[in-house]
Amino acid sequence: LIIREQEPPNLESPFAQLHSFLTPNCLFYVRSHFTTPILEQGNYSLTMDGAMEQSFSLSYDELRDLPAVTRTATLECAGNGRNYLVPQVKGLQWQLGAVSTAEWTGVPLATLLHRARLTADACEIVLQGADQGTPKDEPLPPGKIHYARSFPLTKAKDVVLAYAMNGQELGIDHGYPVRAVVPGYYGMASVKWLTHIHIMETPFQGYFQTSDYAYWDLEAGNPVRRPLREMLVKSAIGRPATREVIKAGSEYRVSGAAWSGNATVSKVEVSTDGGHEWKPACLTDEEQPFVWRRWEFKWLVPFKKGRYILMSRATDNDGNVQPDQHDRNFGPYAIHHTLPVEIEVQ
Amino acid sequence: LIIREQEPPNLESPFAQLHSFLTPNCLFYVRSHFTTPILEQGNYSLTMDGAMEQSFSLSYDELRDLPAVTRTATLECAGNGRNYLVPQVKGLQWQLGAVSTAEWTGVPLATLLHRARLTADACEIVLQGADQGTPKDEPLPPGKIHYARSFPLTKAKDVVLAYAMNGQELGIDHGYPVRAVVPGYYGMASVKWLTHIHIMETPFQGYFQTSDYAYWDLEAGNPVRRPLREMLVKSAIGRPATREVIKAGSEYRVSGAAWSGNATVSKVEVSTDGGHEWKPACLTDEEQPFVWRRWEFKWLVPFKKGRYILMSRATDNDGNVQPDQHDRNFGPYAIHHTLPVEIEVQ
Repeated sequence: LIIREQEPPNLESPFAQLHSFLTPNCLFYVRSHFTTPILEQGNYSLTMDGAMEQSFSLSYDELRDLPAVTRTATLECAGNGRNYLVPQVKGLQWQLGAVSTAEWTGVPLATLLHRARLTADACEIVLQGADQGTPKDEPLPPGKIHYARSFPLTKAKDVVLAYAMNGQELGIDHGYPVRAVVPGYYGMASVKWLTHIHIMETPFQGYFQTSDYAYWDLEAGNPVRRPLREMLVKSAIGRPATREVIKAGSEYRVSGAAWSGNATVSKVEVSTDGGHEWKPACLTDEEQPFVWRRWEFKWLVPFKKGRYILMSRATDNDGNVQPDQHDRNFGPYAIHHTLPVEIEVQ
Repeated sequence: LIIREQEPPNLESPFAQLHSFLTPNCLFYVRSHFTTPILEQGNYSLTMDGAMEQSFSLSYDELRDLPAVTRTATLECAGNGRNYLVPQVKGLQWQLGAVSTAEWTGVPLATLLHRARLTADACEIVLQGADQGTPKDEPLPPGKIHYARSFPLTKAKDVVLAYAMNGQELGIDHGYPVRAVVPGYYGMASVKWLTHIHIMETPFQGYFQTSDYAYWDLEAGNPVRRPLREMLVKSAIGRPATREVIKAGSEYRVSGAAWSGNATVSKVEVSTDGGHEWKPACLTDEEQPFVWRRWEFKWLVPFKKGRYILMSRATDNDGNVQPDQHDRNFGPYAIHHTLPVEIEVQ
């Protein structure tokens, strides 16, 4: 893992290593906002309250006794790729690897919502972690806050309260003993060290929905602030690396991965001439919701030596295509435009 | 007027001059966010659209032909008193005088809503001015924006689209030819140079609702960002001024004004010993919604020479009392705590 911040730990996965469909736990990227909370199974408690007939708490053992599911999901940090923005913007300087895929085992959130019997006005679900501290971006609330994030009730059907990751107990940095996994959303929604679930009757306007992890949308001509949600369609090249030297006249296997939050990736194209001509890549992973598809492209490297610019471009089943420029309304987030990889043929 | 910023013009009323219940137009405070737009009656147009059966536009003459009302309202800038915060915060350094009262003549907003026939889902009304520019506070939208502010539909009954102020045509700095007046709300709601009214089915999350003119409320233990709305109960001392020298053993008339956005002011008390003992002041203006009440207190100045600390404290009919400390959740806004005025008896 590549260190982007020592404390709290923010660690990037080596994106070139796409040898397996599931990212090994030891290579799964880590995103932490505050000091890592050390929780114990023995006194862990998950509290559900808000717009419901019956609020309740569950111990770790009670949660483990409920029927479990295993769901595969790719998580991408909303700031992944930030290092490619020019001019540089503040925030962790992620390159390509703040994205990873795992199988998550735990209790469907739907099971707990069913037990709680929500009121008719319930509209959003706030997940709150045990991690707390003083955030960095203006406007700042006074004092310490907990990490907390919401999603609409309609998204709840996909959400898992996970205690295992690729068949192993969750690691401390990944939210031990229980985290949420919100498939399709940028990683900030998948709250780690989950201790509270609060049901709201109005949209949640917390710090990580407004000051941070938000963007500007347009509504009747006015920019309006909205929380980030679904990952936007994206592909990235794992191999070759920038400035890699490739042998003229050889056959080179360009490879990478592609994903989208709303839909499945249906097509990846590759350009070896800086975006003029595009050719289809081969998708090597099967199509399934909420997970990436790795891809390959056999490049017949020209005999002409010199610099070449490689690019990849993904399209999803909703017809969304990776754009060629970053949308400034997203500020330091949702960096999903096609990125040139400059290499040298010798 | 006291200059707080030359361009755009931000001008403070001399608060000590409370000689009249209505502030003369030439002494009414001015708050501008962007360069003053120069509009003309001849090509002025007010557009109404959004969640309604029939969107429409009105010329200035068409607006003037509608039945008019005259309503008195005190407007206070949400940042009034900011200069008293310690440590100093960024923003215009208003002292006491970013508050004034006028009679506003124009068309009730209700008349236009009636004509528009709103849909059942209508919930908020966005007012947009012709003024536009690049704002200052993070997070910033990319590019220029118009000044725009919303309020809930339930507030619409109080709102006037005003073309006259104290019987005179609106001045350029006060929104010529038409501004909104939202009685009871901080001044930022009373959009000047009004050209668009947009009806929303969800709360408006524009820049001046989220980045600026917003505060932190608490909801289920988490700070949440909310737009500022009603003025909080407040009184301020106009006379004496800080450091004024007052004759020992004389009778001195302490005076000021008090207001509240939600209710009328029912009581003002004065302390001449730094807040230990409080005595009732006499309210010299009658009680009416959305306007200030000036007050007087006859102080029998002691024979003992030295420094004295005067304070005033207002209570409104909803039982709200002026606090003795600034609430940090409001940041640089809603500064309505009791302010000590230190004077010298000689």
